[in-house]
Amino acid sequence: MTSATTEPTAAGRRSKTITEIAELAGVSVPTVSKVVNGRVDVAPETRALVESLIRQHGFHRPKKRAASADIIELVFHELEGAYAMEVIKGVEQVAWDNQLSVVLSELRGRHTPGKGWVEGVLRRRPAGVISVFSGLDSGQREQLHSRGIPFVLVDPTGEPDHQFPSVGATNWNGGLAATRHLLELGHRRIAIVTGPAGVLSSRARFDGYRAAMDAAGVPVDPALVYEGDFHLQDGLAAGRKLLKLKDRPTAFFACNDLQAIGVYQAAHEAGLRVPTEVSVVGFDDLPPAQWAIPAMTTIRQPLRRMAAAAASMVITLRKGDPLPQHRLELVTELVVRESTAPPIKP
Amino acid sequence: MTSATTEPTAAGRRSKTITEIAELAGVSVPTVSKVVNGRVDVAPETRALVESLIRQHGFHRPKKRAASADIIELVFHELEGAYAMEVIKGVEQVAWDNQLSVVLSELRGRHTPGKGWVEGVLRRRPAGVISVFSGLDSGQREQLHSRGIPFVLVDPTGEPDHQFPSVGATNWNGGLAATRHLLELGHRRIAIVTGPAGVLSSRARFDGYRAAMDAAGVPVDPALVYEGDFHLQDGLAAGRKLLKLKDRPTAFFACNDLQAIGVYQAAHEAGLRVPTEVSVVGFDDLPPAQWAIPAMTTIRQPLRRMAAAAASMVITLRKGDPLPQHRLELVTELVVRESTAPPIKP
Repeated sequence: MTSATTEPTAAGRRSKTITEIAELAGVSVPTVSKVVNGRVDVAPETRALVESLIRQHGFHRPKKRAASADIIELVFHELEGAYAMEVIKGVEQVAWDNQLSVVLSELRGRHTPGKGWVEGVLRRRPAGVISVFSGLDSGQREQLHSRGIPFVLVDPTGEPDHQFPSVGATNWNGGLAATRHLLELGHRRIAIVTGPAGVLSSRARFDGYRAAMDAAGVPVDPALVYEGDFHLQDGLAAGRKLLKLKDRPTAFFACNDLQAIGVYQAAHEAGLRVPTEVSVVGFDDLPPAQWAIPAMTTIRQPLRRMAAAAASMVITLRKGDPLPQHRLELVTELVVRESTAPPIKP
Repeated sequence: MTSATTEPTAAGRRSKTITEIAELAGVSVPTVSKVVNGRVDVAPETRALVESLIRQHGFHRPKKRAASADIIELVFHELEGAYAMEVIKGVEQVAWDNQLSVVLSELRGRHTPGKGWVEGVLRRRPAGVISVFSGLDSGQREQLHSRGIPFVLVDPTGEPDHQFPSVGATNWNGGLAATRHLLELGHRRIAIVTGPAGVLSSRARFDGYRAAMDAAGVPVDPALVYEGDFHLQDGLAAGRKLLKLKDRPTAFFACNDLQAIGVYQAAHEAGLRVPTEVSVVGFDDLPPAQWAIPAMTTIRQPLRRMAAAAASMVITLRKGDPLPQHRLELVTELVVRESTAPPIKP
């Protein structure tokens, strides 16, 4: 693989060699090399000076050192169940095909990697970094960029305007398809268990729901909108609350599969059967959707293919080739199983 | 960290330095270094000679090169769902606490890593290797051993006599506890959906079932023993077959949670309710056991703690400290939820 850092910097000038950076900093070449490779035995002020020169002038990694380790870094905000496993499998498949191994990090709920993370990455010299959910601060971005280490986001949050190449899914279309399916079955009292309001993918699914309702001329009843946090408990709480209403919903669109399972549980508690008395649609199509009884109608989000696409982007960038597109959105699709049926006529 | 390779070889002699190995081989020190570090640019016959000398004499890694990369290698036979995620989380937790990252490999169903795998590991110089299910052949074992890279097995298959340090769980006790629980509820027609006959952990669970039945003076009916392969479909097939019997079982012990979910599905198809008409006990206590409706009574196998224990063993070995024990078995325990109840009196 060749380095992607030989291209001109933002300012359009040729980037500096390691010798030139060392001269500018007034330090030895091995010292610059230590900073470049994330070694810890460098005085902080020296490191700061070298980093700032690299930022300012760019850095041309000599061919001999350009060989990256045979790894891809995969960073998770949180390692959670079936969701994370799909992403791991997608990245692992492409890594395997390219004789690369996958290094896994979890940020324990932080949205930006902490101090020390970049140094670890620089020491390992990966072919590239793939992150799920999490962003980098500008310093971390510069450090990866100056070493020619590509960074790609698998972005289920749906933020389309990233500085990094990213892969998402068509969340709005998914929300629309889920709701249309319920409308076509004859439902009018359709509840939604959304994801967090601050997450764009969640907002997009909600907007798709509203668009389908509007198109069908069915008003959205605010009493049937429940804001969840993508956990099973949220679906359970929503179901418990809404199934007690006098004019209760005949159907639920839960914005992920786990919340849909929570709705199943609430229906079970209330003695209502899925789908004859309550229809439920999920989102994601993770394995639990197939295990559920009855098997769940859901929107398939192609997480494994999204992750594989991100890994392919890393490999393209690492070769120094341009990306066909900076942002890739893979399509979601409705998978009809047994949790949806026409409503019982009163 | 210091190398664990300074100890005498099996033959009791002092292991050789890199210079001594180079002299014996009649090659340069950098060439030996390349072989030791898994580099590919060495002639095959030279590599074979150096490897054989290292095998014969042992290799004393100089302190300067002893520094391992800040990674632990985690190797899976197959990356499958909730099970693999528990193992990843356990290893990742200990790795994080020790400022290590986790490199993940999947062997795509092979039980021994293929050619090229060890070279990759040697290049990455990990603190150690943890494997789930998979063993190494003797050459791979020697290559890791001669570089002082510890190898520990997370061993849910239950083979107690490994050449490597390993972590397992008390499968027999689990089978006993599951069956006793059903007997105590008053069940006598208790079916078992086993795992594959060739897997020891599966055999141990089956033996625990038989021991509990024998102790209660209830004969094991061969018609109620169904051999599965740990997949949902096996539980479904077992349930379909056995629930049709004239003298059908009132309870099932499924040897993993997925098979138990298959039994739920078969009961649902047959119009029988869990637990009032059929009781079901699973094994593993993975997240789907808690999501199931009704929530599943199961045997908890502490996969996350088993994986964490394996990672701690790697770290102990890497420091050159002795292990308190070569084989560790963590206890399984019965978790009673809502899928078990007394049988209906005829």
